[in-house]
Amino acid sequence: MKPVSGQERLARAGLTRLCEPGDRAVRRCVFAEGHVAAHERLRAERPDLPDAASDLRRIHALGGRFLCPGDDEWPTRLADLERASKTGPDGRAGEPYGLWVRGPARLATATQLSVAVVGSRSATAYGVSVAGRLAADLADRGWWIASGAAVGIDRAAHEAALDSERTVAVLANGVDVAYPPENAALLRRISRCGLVVSEVPCGVTPRRPRFLIRNRLLAALSLGVVVVEAGVRSGALNTARHAALLGRPLLGVPGPVTSSLSAGVHQLLRDLPEARLVTRAPEIVEEVGRIGELADPLFGQGSARDGLSGALLAVLDAVPARRWALVATIAESARLHAPAVRAVLVALERHGLVEESAGGYRLTPLGRAPSNDPSHAPAGSAGESGRRVAGA
Amino acid sequence: MKPVSGQERLARAGLTRLCEPGDRAVRRCVFAEGHVAAHERLRAERPDLPDAASDLRRIHALGGRFLCPGDDEWPTRLADLERASKTGPDGRAGEPYGLWVRGPARLATATQLSVAVVGSRSATAYGVSVAGRLAADLADRGWWIASGAAVGIDRAAHEAALDSERTVAVLANGVDVAYPPENAALLRRISRCGLVVSEVPCGVTPRRPRFLIRNRLLAALSLGVVVVEAGVRSGALNTARHAALLGRPLLGVPGPVTSSLSAGVHQLLRDLPEARLVTRAPEIVEEVGRIGELADPLFGQGSARDGLSGALLAVLDAVPARRWALVATIAESARLHAPAVRAVLVALERHGLVEESAGGYRLTPLGRAPSNDPSHAPAGSAGESGRRVAGA
Repeated sequence: MKPVSGQERLARAGLTRLCEPGDRAVRRCVFAEGHVAAHERLRAERPDLPDAASDLRRIHALGGRFLCPGDDEWPTRLADLERASKTGPDGRAGEPYGLWVRGPARLATATQLSVAVVGSRSATAYGVSVAGRLAADLADRGWWIASGAAVGIDRAAHEAALDSERTVAVLANGVDVAYPPENAALLRRISRCGLVVSEVPCGVTPRRPRFLIRNRLLAALSLGVVVVEAGVRSGALNTARHAALLGRPLLGVPGPVTSSLSAGVHQLLRDLPEARLVTRAPEIVEEVGRIGELADPLFGQGSARDGLSGALLAVLDAVPARRWALVATIAESARLHAPAVRAVLVALERHGLVEESAGGYRLTPLGRAPSNDPSHAPAGSAGESGRRVAGA
Repeated sequence: MKPVSGQERLARAGLTRLCEPGDRAVRRCVFAEGHVAAHERLRAERPDLPDAASDLRRIHALGGRFLCPGDDEWPTRLADLERASKTGPDGRAGEPYGLWVRGPARLATATQLSVAVVGSRSATAYGVSVAGRLAADLADRGWWIASGAAVGIDRAAHEAALDSERTVAVLANGVDVAYPPENAALLRRISRCGLVVSEVPCGVTPRRPRFLIRNRLLAALSLGVVVVEAGVRSGALNTARHAALLGRPLLGVPGPVTSSLSAGVHQLLRDLPEARLVTRAPEIVEEVGRIGELADPLFGQGSARDGLSGALLAVLDAVPARRWALVATIAESARLHAPAVRAVLVALERHGLVEESAGGYRLTPLGRAPSNDPSHAPAGSAGESGRRVAGA
């Protein structure tokens, strides 16, 4: 998929200012006339609103960016929203026109192995503790934690994943708006070392319907949704239902049957046949790792390394754990041709085992996890490279 | 099915003394030669043990009885054990040779609408409270609660159901043996107003393998098994697996994921596809009412009355709520012939809606529950009869 033209990019940015993400009339108009014409028409109606160029200047001034489908950093998984909008109930919002993003991580990489952890704002101490524990354990395993930056469960999940710098906040307002106000410091931290993402431009404040539209984006960006605590009317159940509609694993963490804040989760586990009960991070990885672009053997036997083919393993063993290495260096170390190594690295990155920067590639924590299968241990290299972290 | 002969009854009683319920060699012998010959052979080997006549005198002295397949009071559902023993792993114990019983209730009636509520001996305050609440709510709805008379969850379930005098203790020892000693008073109360049942004669003390054999009987006597709290090695999970093998609904009550005493229940809900999460008594009734001899419409729509045919409903409306009425009186009130009314009353008793004594029939709490379907409300009769209890 090619990046969109500069003119279309500007139109897409403008559309996120001029209409709500789920607006059906605008979607029909875009479908019929294209982004540029649709944007011009809407723009003529609302000359009072900031124009796309000024919104783009504003996000750049914050060190952020505006992403469009076709960009390297665009998560291809979001196309599922377009499919769901066509087969599902009329008027469901499709793929975003674009995403406003702050933070140092690449969105496509972050969401490659990401799980949404969501739940009630009025969480109990039990829920907060469980959400934090699960998020920390998942982040330790190389997974990114996506959530909605609300108080309660969302906040506990973000905070726990911040230690590993692996968290994505998906907002219903502009990425520069501190909402809810009590999470202002949390959002600042996430935008410095994780990712803050929104479908609406800077300065836009949250409104009730935007939360529901945001929930679909949160579900679509993740490989699965984990609901930790939710009353029977919690918005977290809306995110969960979006996950089910998108074919993402929908996981519920049980709690005391005497707690009204677990009642929504229990209802979900009883009513939706696709919902699965989970209690620990490895169970979540087992469920979520089953789908998406990940190969089954990658997650079937405890360690991400198990079941990798010889070439993949040779390249993986040549990627440094902490410092960055260029493809040529890795190829030399693995005794393979550079073009083959480059292809393997792309596959390994898709599997969340390596990450890329301007300096080349290095292992992710998931890539550093030792194999459980002794036949995969390269003779003599473990102690030497120091990459097989005990207990990782 | 006819009652067994006096000679076979004596042989069956003797077999329960001379061999363990699951003894394969004895079962083969019984299958080949019949109960009488098998008993004579075993008896010759162990002349030191009490004989059947003395065991029968002993149970009668306690006000109890020895039941055999074919007796009116024998639960026909126990034949499922014979089927399961043939299709399942070799050596699984089949239908009991007989059952030693104490208590005023009829075993067949009590187990017609019965649920096993089981769980850990080392239960938490949460588990004890939830087991008690579920058992009380089920007993209020006319259900009998079966359990294993252990401390912890079993005890909480029995105690809660004792208020409604609807509990069956299924023991791994003789019905006169107070085991565990701390439940001596509980067992006395159950034998006075509920039922105490065992496969082994008076005086026999519990032994470890007998608990597993007992668990199959507990599962077989019930329409479904509810596990409230269980560690991953709890014996309650053995009862749960027996339920699954017998095709009985297997229900688990979740708890905090931080509690090791809920871990076994969560594992069950994750691993066994037939296991269902439940949180309240109506959910248990919904699951358990789906199977067995109960017609689907009886439990499909919230009230047991919904979906009953005209004749059943007419008879039901003619049965008094609290006092006992003879069949002739009910027939007169329902304006139907006595033989037809008698047949309907038998069906209603099977459905747990009426109960029988020497004084005739009266409604059970389940039979007193009002209909949710206005089309079933007999015009003008509700206020008059005073039988439709508000909020029941």
